[in-house]
Formats: sequence, structure tokens, C-alpha cells
Amino acid sequence: MKIGILGGGQLAAMMAQAGAPLGMDFVFLDPAADACAGHHGQLLVDDWASAPERTELAACDRLTCDFENVSAEVLEALAERQTVRPAPSAFAAAQDRLTEKQLFEELEIPLAPFAAVDSRPELLAALERIGYPAVLKTRRFGYDGKGQAVLRGPEDLEPAWAALGGNSLVLEGWVPFEHECALTAVRSASGEVRFYPPSWTLHADGILRVTLAPGRLPEPTVTEAQARLKRLLDHLDYVGCLTLELFAADSGLLANEFAPRVHNSAHWTIEGAETSQFENHLRAVADLPLGSTAARGESIMLNWIGALPSIERLLEVPGLSWHDYRKQARPGRKVGHATIVAADRDQLIERVETVKSRLDRQWAPWLDRALGALG
Amino acid sequence: MKIGILGGGQLAAMMAQAGAPLGMDFVFLDPAADACAGHHGQLLVDDWASAPERTELAACDRLTCDFENVSAEVLEALAERQTVRPAPSAFAAAQDRLTEKQLFEELEIPLAPFAAVDSRPELLAALERIGYPAVLKTRRFGYDGKGQAVLRGPEDLEPAWAALGGNSLVLEGWVPFEHECALTAVRSASGEVRFYPPSWTLHADGILRVTLAPGRLPEPTVTEAQARLKRLLDHLDYVGCLTLELFAADSGLLANEFAPRVHNSAHWTIEGAETSQFENHLRAVADLPLGSTAARGESIMLNWIGALPSIERLLEVPGLSWHDYRKQARPGRKVGHATIVAADRDQLIERVETVKSRLDRQWAPWLDRALGALG
Repeated sequence: MKIGILGGGQLAAMMAQAGAPLGMDFVFLDPAADACAGHHGQLLVDDWASAPERTELAACDRLTCDFENVSAEVLEALAERQTVRPAPSAFAAAQDRLTEKQLFEELEIPLAPFAAVDSRPELLAALERIGYPAVLKTRRFGYDGKGQAVLRGPEDLEPAWAALGGNSLVLEGWVPFEHECALTAVRSASGEVRFYPPSWTLHADGILRVTLAPGRLPEPTVTEAQARLKRLLDHLDYVGCLTLELFAADSGLLANEFAPRVHNSAHWTIEGAETSQFENHLRAVADLPLGSTAARGESIMLNWIGALPSIERLLEVPGLSWHDYRKQARPGRKVGHATIVAADRDQLIERVETVKSRLDRQWAPWLDRALGALG
Repeated sequence: MKIGILGGGQLAAMMAQAGAPLGMDFVFLDPAADACAGHHGQLLVDDWASAPERTELAACDRLTCDFENVSAEVLEALAERQTVRPAPSAFAAAQDRLTEKQLFEELEIPLAPFAAVDSRPELLAALERIGYPAVLKTRRFGYDGKGQAVLRGPEDLEPAWAALGGNSLVLEGWVPFEHECALTAVRSASGEVRFYPPSWTLHADGILRVTLAPGRLPEPTVTEAQARLKRLLDHLDYVGCLTLELFAADSGLLANEFAPRVHNSAHWTIEGAETSQFENHLRAVADLPLGSTAARGESIMLNWIGALPSIERLLEVPGLSWHDYRKQARPGRKVGHATIVAADRDQLIERVETVKSRLDRQWAPWLDRALGALG
């Protein structure tokens, strides 16, 4: 079985690491010559638009993506001749924040109030309706907090418009949330859906820093969130893993956005679940039976942003698994992560305390938040 | 960190899979152009004897082996200019069954009676002393039951001598054992030793078929076996993982042989231990801190010999992880394995029953033996 992946970043690399023991070979397409998945298969260095002409991709049994902004047109051209999973329509829906929010509304998935903004008068009208604070975001190509401006009050309006005006935008009401969380599911071509336990997530500067899994949410809340996510998956006739990011607000869970691919918030599943998201995505894509999504113990995942911390000091922590993406260090770049798995909550707390004593102090407030959630 | 591995089989491949997330690159030397580790790094196709001349190996930060019969002379030549772990002396000791047994004796590690046999009169004298049943084995290059003949009584003497006479041999007393087991340890360059839980192993036709881990042995027996293995590791100033195979006899554990490398009986550690044998071997070789060797739940490993069974039926079993070595099917060849991990013994029994119903019936007696050991 040969799998072609559009995108050659760490998500593609981790898919290849999960797929090799299943007997799969991988081909990656990425515009960057140093794309890190190149360590795990054949790397084609080319523009996304070249995909339909590349014979190496045409020779693959299945195509999938590690990147959600591959143009839906390119994916549709590929889907005309071979199996692309998930289908291009899922990308089209996720690539535009307005379409995405309208889809949530249509499927009765609760979310914060929002409005399309294409002009300054529309922004003023939207603020009138939604009120401050609010977040102005580009409809397309935003990720990890890029293309966003928070409007705390009227004084933030001009700088935000100067930065983002001219793009197609969406204004979102600011949700006062207790914490963020993520729900990852895998769906097979026959429509079977399995859910990973929801996770507790912590972002800083728009980038995920910490995931705890399983997160602690009341059972009825989880059941309801799963039903909503299932409506989305079924609507898209989705095949593979998908993550829905949510705000845990007073009024319940509110959808933020979804990613039609494997997702950073579910990296903990490599060591912390019976089957990882990467393996389950590939199983779905390749028409193999889905694997168990049950958690194995209690996990915390820490994202290494910009540069790796000292491996020597951290590998001494029991239950810690290291993931070096082999990317060049650069501010704001995801260059690796670590997951610590423990048998139970008390052991996890002890291990997190050890990690905290060995990490740079920028980590202290984030790990204190996590320890508070583990409580 | 670049690691060179002499040998490019599945053990090398699984080392590379464990090392990639640690940021390691791999170069393999193997005489076979289709050596399966080639999927995971640069494969040099050449004789073992070429190793000292290959600049790609000279450029490695560390060298190790996935194969115990690389000549100690070649390893010594390499060790003169770079770090080879474990040291060549460990290979020299393991490559000759007579040296190996004499070393066990010297270190007061109990084993079955044995005698060197280089001629027919020596064989008769050895049989006089040891008695029937006994096993005649070549001193060198035996593995997976090859180069062996069982002598149940005088009628087996002539055929065994016809098959093996002319080689340097060793006669071993036949040990009536309840079961076989294996003890794997990892030792760092600073002398720290960590033990994996001992496993219960089942062989058929000289080839490992099933491992259960943790195996059930009385605590004093385990402590004593660990002390013996530590004497061996310290004597060899060993760096990396080593497995000691043992017979559980009425008189206690008797040493069979040791392997100066990662070992088939510890494949369960990939999913079933906090740190796999492959990662811990590399951590030791690369002077990184050793990882926890604690078990995660209860595991069973099944070896796929000759050909892979149907992946579709087996991936439905919860907690089952598949390992396709991507080797051509051939009778007697190890082409893959699967490990099933469960939270506890009852869940493992249930999962083994499910697997049994989905495998060819040659598996029934082996799995019944395993269920008996679990029971």
C-alpha cells in the first residue's frame, strides 16, 4: 500500500512513522526542500498546484493531506482519478472561517456569535451587534493565531483594521471560557465513527502549548459533543481523523474550528491511546478496521516551540517520550513535542512536577494551569 | 546524532523507528540489497568485512549491531577508531557456545551440564557423563534452532554425527523445563542497569512464537536472575540491551544463551513497556539517560513466521499493534509480529481468545499454552 501525502511536515512524518509497521510506503509533496517528512519516504519538492501532474502521486493507492490549506481545486482534480481522503469538500469547508461557521450553524453545533466583514461599515455594524470584546480574523489561511486581532474596545479598532482590512474577514464574539478543549474522532468509509477521549488544551500566543488527556468533562457534555461532531463527520461523508476545537464556556461547549486532518491536540494518542490518531487516520484512509481509541493511563503533551529544550534532562523523567521533528529552530516554529504518560492521575501530577523543575520558567504558569486542571 | 548499524534486518529497522523521534539518523550495512531496514535510512549493500573501509560508517557518531555473528575482528577494527557499543568482546563471548557456557560457569550463572565435542570419541565420552537426552549443537553460527540435533537415545547418535560431525560442537544436557523465559536488561556506559520484567516465552521448531510479559516468576527467583545477569553485564562492561534466555526448571532458572543486542523476546516492550528495548538500547549507545523499563499493562507478542496472516481480521482486535517487517515471505522466515496489550490479565485473556478465533489452527496449541500460563 502506497500513501501519497500533500504536505511534508511533522504531521506527515508522524503518519509515516505510524504507517511503516502496517507495511505502508509514503510519498510526500511539499514546496520546501527540507520538509521533515523527507526522512520517512520519498519527498517531491514542488508547488501544491503541481500535484495532478506528478506521476509519483498518481501511482499511490490513496492520497491524504497533512495541511489543510491545499487548494480544494487541486484536491478535486486529484479526486477525479484516485481516492483522496478526506474528500476535497471537507477542505473547502474548513479553509474559509465563514463557511465553517455557517456549517456549524446549519448542523446545530453551538458556536460564538459571528458576522462576515468585508468593509469598514460592515465591521462597525458587526461590532454593534456582537459587542466588545471580539476577535477579527481573516477568513482564509489563518493558523496558530496568525491573521487575527483582538478588539478589546474602540481603541483597538483602527490598528486592527489597518492590519487586516482589505481581506475577507469574520468578526467573532469573544467567548469567556474556562478552558479550551479538543475532540478528535476517526470515521471509516463505511461510516463507523470512534471518538478519542476529549482533551484539555492550553494555548499561548495562539499556539497550542499543553494537552491533557483524558480531559475532565461531565459525561452528558461529552455525549452531546460527540453527537454534534458525528453530525459534522456524516455531513462531510468524512474519512479519516478530524479534530474539533472547542471553548468550555459557562453555557457549555462552543465550537471554535475544525481541522480536516490529524491534529496537534491529539499527539498524546501516540503513547496515550490504544491506537494513535496517525494510525487510525491511515487505517481509515486505507480501508483497514479502525483501532481502539481508548486512553492508556493519563497523558500530558508539551509542545516545543522555537527550539528544543535539553533532551538529557527531560529523558530522565519516567514515562516521557520525545519527538524531535528534525526541523531547524526558528521563533514560533513547532520543532518537537514530548508526551508523558502515567498510570494514574497522582503519578501524572508527580511527573509533571518533575518536568516543571527541569524546564525553563516560561513553562511554570502553563504547567501550573495543567496541575490545577489535574487537581 | 548518526548511528551506524551492522545488519539491516527488522531489529535494525525497529531501532531506526525508535531513534527517529530522538532526532537520530541511521546508516545500515548489510550484504542483502533488499534488507528491510533500508526503508528507514541509508543502506550500504556490502560484506561485513568491508565495514572498516566504508566512509559512511566512519562518519557515524556510534556503531552498533542488529546481528550477533558479525566477526569480532571486524568489530575490533572499527572500535579502534570509533565508539562501538556493545564492545566487540561481548560478541566474541556470545558467538561461541562453548565460550558462552564457560563464561556462565565462571560467573556462577547456573546452566545445564555441557561438554566440548570435537570428535566422535569425545561425543561418546560426553554422552557417558551427561546422559540422554542431550542436544548436540555447533559452537558457532547457530540460531533459531539451526545447527542442532536432539539425541533422545543411542539411535539418534549416528544421524546427528552425520549432520554435524566435522564442526566444533558442544553437547548440552537436556533440561526438562516447565517453560522458557527471557530476561532483558539495559546497561549505560556509566554502569547503571535497568531490568525489564522477565517474560514467558514459547518456541516451536527452535523459533520463538509467543512471548507473555510480565511473566509470572516468584520474586526471589527474579531477584536472583537479575543479580546473575548484572554479573554478566558488568563483566562484559556492556553498553546497550542484552537478553538472557533461560529455562524454568525444577531446580530454578538455568541459562540457555545470551544475545548481545536487542532481541525478539522483548519486542513486546514497544507497546508494553514505558520505554522500548529499541529506544533504551539507543539511549545507552548514545549516552542519553536510560528510560523506565516498567511494563504498561499485560502483553502478548505473536511472531509471524513464513508469511503474514490476514491483517484485516486481526486489526479488529482491540489493543493489537501490527509490525510488518516488509520482508519477502519465505518458509521459516520472521516476517512480522503483533503485540496485544491489555490493561489487566482478564482483558488480555479475552483478547487472546479473540485472536485465537481469528488465526490459523496451528496457533491453537500455542495460544492454549499461553492462556494456561495466564490462567
